[in-house]
Amino acid sequence: MNEQQPSLAVSTVIFALRPDPVTGAATVWIPVVRRIREPYLGKWALPGGPLTMNESLASAASRTLEETTGLAPQFLEQLYAFGSVDRSPELRVVSIVYWALVQSVTADAVRDDENVTWLSTDDLPELAFDHNLIVDYALWRLRTKMEYSRIAQAFLGEDFTLAQLREVHEAVLQKPLDPANFRRMIEATKSIVATDRHVTGTRHRPARLYRYDTSLELADSGPLATHV
Amino acid sequence: MNEQQPSLAVSTVIFALRPDPVTGAATVWIPVVRRIREPYLGKWALPGGPLTMNESLASAASRTLEETTGLAPQFLEQLYAFGSVDRSPELRVVSIVYWALVQSVTADAVRDDENVTWLSTDDLPELAFDHNLIVDYALWRLRTKMEYSRIAQAFLGEDFTLAQLREVHEAVLQKPLDPANFRRMIEATKSIVATDRHVTGTRHRPARLYRYDTSLELADSGPLATHV
Repeated sequence: MNEQQPSLAVSTVIFALRPDPVTGAATVWIPVVRRIREPYLGKWALPGGPLTMNESLASAASRTLEETTGLAPQFLEQLYAFGSVDRSPELRVVSIVYWALVQSVTADAVRDDENVTWLSTDDLPELAFDHNLIVDYALWRLRTKMEYSRIAQAFLGEDFTLAQLREVHEAVLQKPLDPANFRRMIEATKSIVATDRHVTGTRHRPARLYRYDTSLELADSGPLATHV
Repeated sequence: MNEQQPSLAVSTVIFALRPDPVTGAATVWIPVVRRIREPYLGKWALPGGPLTMNESLASAASRTLEETTGLAPQFLEQLYAFGSVDRSPELRVVSIVYWALVQSVTADAVRDDENVTWLSTDDLPELAFDHNLIVDYALWRLRTKMEYSRIAQAFLGEDFTLAQLREVHEAVLQKPLDPANFRRMIEATKSIVATDRHVTGTRHRPARLYRYDTSLELADSGPLATHV
């Protein structure tokens, strides 16, 4: 087993909702870290690193997430293993990528310094390696999964208004949704249940709070659900 | 980069339909190879091996498939990366697993010798490592995917009768299906189109041939569809 082998890394795409600085509308953001060595010195990259001998893939992804954001994920799932021969210009590196959702974060709860920043996925610059492709794929998985599961829950608290849930869908789908059509669509899925509580604002009439029907899986992992 | 790192292997779950030796009904089979070293010496395991420096993950999976079965896959997709710390008793090995479908094979087209055999997934013995879990997960993915894609196509020729398509569904779902209900279900999906040709048998009335609507994706891979 002393032959040269490809290196193995674990990286994580971490999604959170944050307001667009111009429009104020919620959009999907990711934290990225600055490359401090070649290749791609100075470029932004997904957080990650080599897999150590004593941690599982999911543990490595969770650790990376905590180190980068100080947050715990509401949802963490394996995305894909990226292993094209030419994805790194020197070393051969296979990256096993996870994706995670963290609850919407406010600006001051977020680490944002010289070496870590958050970027809106609506307008990403060129990232290191094949990381733009990886983010595109993670966004596609998020959109797909939102259609048939209660994954949007991971961005929200336990209770939420229909307007808040619509805001999550708008951010993920990157387009505005008609409130009445959205209400009909989401009620047809029978995935949420009305509570008897309301939030009261200063300018609007009280809005009913909803929650997801938790008898639905957050995201169906089949036989892996009970397996780390 | 000289620290000890987990090893990386690529394995493949290869599904084909073969008749049950007792009932004659089509069931889902996989080829397995005998372990010729410890750990699990003598046990059956999924075909695979270390990733070499010059092949992509999918190429390694295809090569394994060809070496084991002499066949080319109709469908090949990444399943999952399995990396629990204790999944191998000595070395730390991360296995990136692919799953593949090959067209139904007849007994004499199949390599079956001391070191390679085919086993029915309806009644698997204990395999090496966590390979039973891996096969369970691949079967779950196959069943899930059959609900919303034309993946069953990969087991069939281009044209097929409704009875042949039902046989694929029965094998994958491991239960008999009522022919009239199956016809209504499959017609409701609008995924198949009738041709103007029929097959004639000796004992039955001619059966119409169908084919899948190929404007549907065989299996949707999102942004990875154009990426190896």
